[in-house]
Amino acid sequence: MRFRSELEMFAFMEREFYSGAISDILDAMGFRNCAASPHALIRPLYPQAVCAGRVRTLLNAPKRTGRKDPYKMAIALMDSLVPGDVAVAAATGPLETGIMGELSATAMRGRGARGCVVDGYTRDARKIIGMKFPVFARGVSPIDTTDRAAVVDVDCPVVFAGRRVAPGQIVFADLDGIVFIPKEAEKETIEEAVRRVREESKVRRALGSGKKVREVWDKYHVL
Amino acid sequence: MRFRSELEMFAFMEREFYSGAISDILDAMGFRNCAASPHALIRPLYPQAVCAGRVRTLLNAPKRTGRKDPYKMAIALMDSLVPGDVAVAAATGPLETGIMGELSATAMRGRGARGCVVDGYTRDARKIIGMKFPVFARGVSPIDTTDRAAVVDVDCPVVFAGRRVAPGQIVFADLDGIVFIPKEAEKETIEEAVRRVREESKVRRALGSGKKVREVWDKYHVL
Amino acid sequence: MRFRSELEMFAFMEREFYSGAISDILDAMGFRNCAASPHALIRPLYPQAVCAGRVRTLLNAPKRTGRKDPYKMAIALMDSLVPGDVAVAAATGPLETGIMGELSATAMRGRGARGCVVDGYTRDARKIIGMKFPVFARGVSPIDTTDRAAVVDVDCPVVFAGRRVAPGQIVFADLDGIVFIPKEAEKETIEEAVRRVREESKVRRALGSGKKVREVWDKYHVL
Amino acid sequence: MRFRSELEMFAFMEREFYSGAISDILDAMGFRNCAASPHALIRPLYPQAVCAGRVRTLLNAPKRTGRKDPYKMAIALMDSLVPGDVAVAAATGPLETGIMGELSATAMRGRGARGCVVDGYTRDARKIIGMKFPVFARGVSPIDTTDRAAVVDVDCPVVFAGRRVAPGQIVFADLDGIVFIPKEAEKETIEEAVRRVREESKVRRALGSGKKVREVWDKYHVL
Amino acid sequence: MRFRSELEMFAFMEREFYSGAISDILDAMGFRNCAASPHALIRPLYPQAVCAGRVRTLLNAPKRTGRKDPYKMAIALMDSLVPGDVAVAAATGPLETGIMGELSATAMRGRGARGCVVDGYTRDARKIIGMKFPVFARGVSPIDTTDRAAVVDVDCPVVFAGRRVAPGQIVFADLDGIVFIPKEAEKETIEEAVRRVREESKVRRALGSGKKVREVWDKYHVL
Amino acid sequence: MRFRSELEMFAFMEREFYSGAISDILDAMGFRNCAASPHALIRPLYPQAVCAGRVRTLLNAPKRTGRKDPYKMAIALMDSLVPGDVAVAAATGPLETGIMGELSATAMRGRGARGCVVDGYTRDARKIIGMKFPVFARGVSPIDTTDRAAVVDVDCPVVFAGRRVAPGQIVFADLDGIVFIPKEAEKETIEEAVRRVREESKVRRALGSGKKVREVWDKYHVL
Repeated sequence: MRFRSELEMFAFMEREFYSGAISDILDAMGFRNCAASPHALIRPLYPQAVCAGRVRTLLNAPKRTGRKDPYKMAIALMDSLVPGDVAVAAATGPLETGIMGELSATAMRGRGARGCVVDGYTRDARKIIGMKFPVFARGVSPIDTTDRAAVVDVDCPVVFAGRRVAPGQIVFADLDGIVFIPKEAEKETIEEAVRRVREESKVRRALGSGKKVREVWDKYHVL
Repeated sequence: MRFRSELEMFAFMEREFYSGAISDILDAMGFRNCAASPHALIRPLYPQAVCAGRVRTLLNAPKRTGRKDPYKMAIALMDSLVPGDVAVAAATGPLETGIMGELSATAMRGRGARGCVVDGYTRDARKIIGMKFPVFARGVSPIDTTDRAAVVDVDCPVVFAGRRVAPGQIVFADLDGIVFIPKEAEKETIEEAVRRVREESKVRRALGSGKKVREVWDKYHVL
Repeated sequence: MRFRSELEMFAFMEREFYSGAISDILDAMGFRNCAASPHALIRPLYPQAVCAGRVRTLLNAPKRTGRKDPYKMAIALMDSLVPGDVAVAAATGPLETGIMGELSATAMRGRGARGCVVDGYTRDARKIIGMKFPVFARGVSPIDTTDRAAVVDVDCPVVFAGRRVAPGQIVFADLDGIVFIPKEAEKETIEEAVRRVREESKVRRALGSGKKVREVWDKYHVL
Repeated sequence: MRFRSELEMFAFMEREFYSGAISDILDAMGFRNCAASPHALIRPLYPQAVCAGRVRTLLNAPKRTGRKDPYKMAIALMDSLVPGDVAVAAATGPLETGIMGELSATAMRGRGARGCVVDGYTRDARKIIGMKFPVFARGVSPIDTTDRAAVVDVDCPVVFAGRRVAPGQIVFADLDGIVFIPKEAEKETIEEAVRRVREESKVRRALGSGKKVREVWDKYHVL
Repeated sequence: MRFRSELEMFAFMEREFYSGAISDILDAMGFRNCAASPHALIRPLYPQAVCAGRVRTLLNAPKRTGRKDPYKMAIALMDSLVPGDVAVAAATGPLETGIMGELSATAMRGRGARGCVVDGYTRDARKIIGMKFPVFARGVSPIDTTDRAAVVDVDCPVVFAGRRVAPGQIVFADLDGIVFIPKEAEKETIEEAVRRVREESKVRRALGSGKKVREVWDKYHVL
Repeated sequence: MRFRSELEMFAFMEREFYSGAISDILDAMGFRNCAASPHALIRPLYPQAVCAGRVRTLLNAPKRTGRKDPYKMAIALMDSLVPGDVAVAAATGPLETGIMGELSATAMRGRGARGCVVDGYTRDARKIIGMKFPVFARGVSPIDTTDRAAVVDVDCPVVFAGRRVAPGQIVFADLDGIVFIPKEAEKETIEEAVRRVREESKVRRALGSGKKVREVWDKYHVL
């Protein structure tokens, strides 16, 4: 399968891929730590949310901000987003603040970003759901970051839900979870996923038509 | 903005306010511990649930009840509710019981209560969702309170999800969280929230029309 | 109430029963540990999911599998399901893997199983929601079991979310939780639940018509 | 074995018994929910702490106290303790306060109480360790209860770490955990425990002398 | 009470004060959020550890480091410590790494620092216990920070175990917990604590001599 | 360094090694997931406990046992232990049972085993501490496994505290944590650790003599 552009590829991935399939392919290639830990319980704000794109990172830490330009780094990162980007906000569960919100979502979408994944809480959940902008987070909080947390670095390598992530990697997120594809496995993973998507529908038809799982497994080795 | 009655004000708040905006306003006034801790993971049973009203408290504790009138206090509290009240059930996460249920919701709505927030579990989630009565809880449990937990006091000051709450305060709850407005800040908070609601739509329009976040922040100082 | 078959009974239970009512009835008979612990936070993938049926167990453990027929036990169990069965996958929260998925759901439904409850994570949540097959789980994970967990026994007595469960028991699961009915209490529980379903609608009408909770409780002793 | 007094019996139990042995005996008699849930992680302040005695309960709840006699109930309970009592403070993990402290420990010991078990946090850990008064708790906190939690009932049946407990039961606590002996099983449990203590030393000697576990199990059925 | 130097004052505090007493005094003055949240379960590596001193902060975040001078900020902070300082490492529970270790402890002690409190894990626990250098942490981990976490700022205001902390505040830590004294309350708190230390020994004697708690409370209002 | 036997090597490791040093060496070789997750909070029963040896696994699962020979697999494994073995019991945190106890410890020591690490709870903590047999566990529980959990396999590859472990690997456990050395890195890791042990004492001396951390890091690159 050939894509005319990366944006077309991301759109195809969002329509056809599943995080489980991508994780399985990476597993088989020996990359066993690419999915955000499911124990982090990071979920989309609405069940149909899916996003695929290139990682842009924001690093949050439990720091009190000054009142002078407290969002400087966050603003610069948002204004630098380009179509196909996905904002990846590394932070940590115990922060009480919502580090993502509706205005940020509006700005991100305005710049062509495809979504935002947060290892922490978000705010403005009802509005973001209304916008259908795919935001994934550990939970929600009405509490602002001011004097509680700050973006301390951007576009840096981070640890997200227990996994190491670098800017520029492709990330795929859906209701099952979030998978970060290693740079060196990018091409092979996507090609194989395209192939797998077709295979699974055969398995589905076989099982749906009443075949025993034993037969289906022996034939396709997928379950 | 003037309201002809408190009920009108609560209805306006439910239509127009967001817990995040209220929390920000209180923050700026120096009241930094008004939102129920997001770590308590208290959620509405359905995402659109919103309620605003005056706090009426029930205090639950891990106590075995006798079979003779085990719900005496809870019943008295429910029968004393007046329009505009919100039942606030303080308890604690580890209780295995559902301390709120459909019949209580029916009774509460019958008396004009606008919702119920529970620092614990609820029961009858499907029916309550069907009624569209706004109930917020840490989770659900089919297990009854009998011999496991009891209401030990009502209309008393309580600690709810880590925050101190007194009967008569205004509470606002939506998908982002629950905010208890301190008595002394009530008037100013609501006036400022009305103003803020209007401001944010300007910011939204500015960002939607493609303005840089930098410009928008420098002009409105909202994010 | 008489049912012409067990399948008819399960269908009636799914339409009319609530896990709370079943739990209350068992409580009153002295069976106080029949509901899966609510602290396990096991939820249906979609809020309307309900299932009732006979327990068939799979026991998962944190074991690395060989590549040769890693799903042997799981496949055998699935191929042996008969109409009215509910797969009960005992495992443990900390497993990072999704131990249930869409193809399994397809196979289970193909054999007449009424649902699947998992003390662990599931995969393929979007597809399973699309199928409307009732799956209950602690959460979701895109991570496959290969070399991380294995089915080590089937049709054996297990401990599920803190409760002891044996194959052949009736299980009932809905949005409030999961209740395992002890074999010896089966008949009485279901008869009483049928009776209770009718009673509660009277209570609901009484409360809806504005009666005080005090009066209603004194008359019906239900809350 | 005969004891001249209950105090002598409690002292013997503290010297010779283990919570594991008591739990096993109750298990074999069909009482399977007598040990405080180990997930509550209730620990003694020092590893050698052991206590046995009659339960006296205090029920704590997340309530703001008035400044007028805030400790009324707690004081009354402490002043009513008699030799052989063990204070059992039911509360709940999320309370941030230390609900037991050194002065209470001094008072309790002064009245002959044998220890205190807390389903919550304690204060003054260093001093209590220095006194060698056996206090068991989920953790420690320097934060006072004032306006954060209150004793709302005493000498009432409570739920402690997930188990139902009534005043007057015998409780046994050591490094492994806390076991509440049901009233009806009291005599038999203690007699059997005395017997078991002797048996286990035979098993220990057999294993110590190099016997295979297989032989020892086949002979003694203890492991 | 007069101290000839701050170091003398810190030494006196370590000998005579208790975190509970300091927390109570601040509570009474209206400073109710000065103690690190007990839910963070931050503990000393050995029970007798106590430290008092001036806060110096390090802010850690889940960031991958480069191999070139990965510890630059941490090293600079350590080399700038002066006698009476206490290193306060803000981070977050979920980091898997040990962000404090024996060599850092050696360096800190070498520069006169009085201890180190960590909202995260430490390493080299046995050696640090052997040194009797007071380190407080959420737990231990043998895993190094390289490529998993980095110090991203020092001597900045941070959020530590849920509380806002600024460099230069006095911190007091013992087995019960960690209290950060607000700058404006510093003098009054320490004077009152000196007074309280004396009072409590009277209460202790009174209770030890068999007085009822009722009498003692009515006289001293301490419990 | 040469060892005359594996037992001599294990004894040397227990005297001289630290889990942190081993983890660092493996990290530098690219093996980044060898330490049991520190979030599992697995601790030795006494702080000085250390053990090194060859992994022998027991796999526990939440299964009800029959009364006929419920410990068959566990007994067989224990009777097959040889000097230098370390029992590694994989299970899962939520099991309420103590899956290791004093009699097992006695049997294990009798056969020359050097310790036991448990991803779950242990029993008989006081006695095991008295024996100075190194047992590491998530916590303690007096509750027996009978009808709650069972050993379902032995000497199989398992997942322990989030890491994959195979029988025959070398495991090293101390107060900081538990590290499983990959088979292919065994020789190099141990040689490097011997070298590192010597290096660190130079660093320690340098820091102890008042050298700046900057200088010491620039010279030794160890911190």
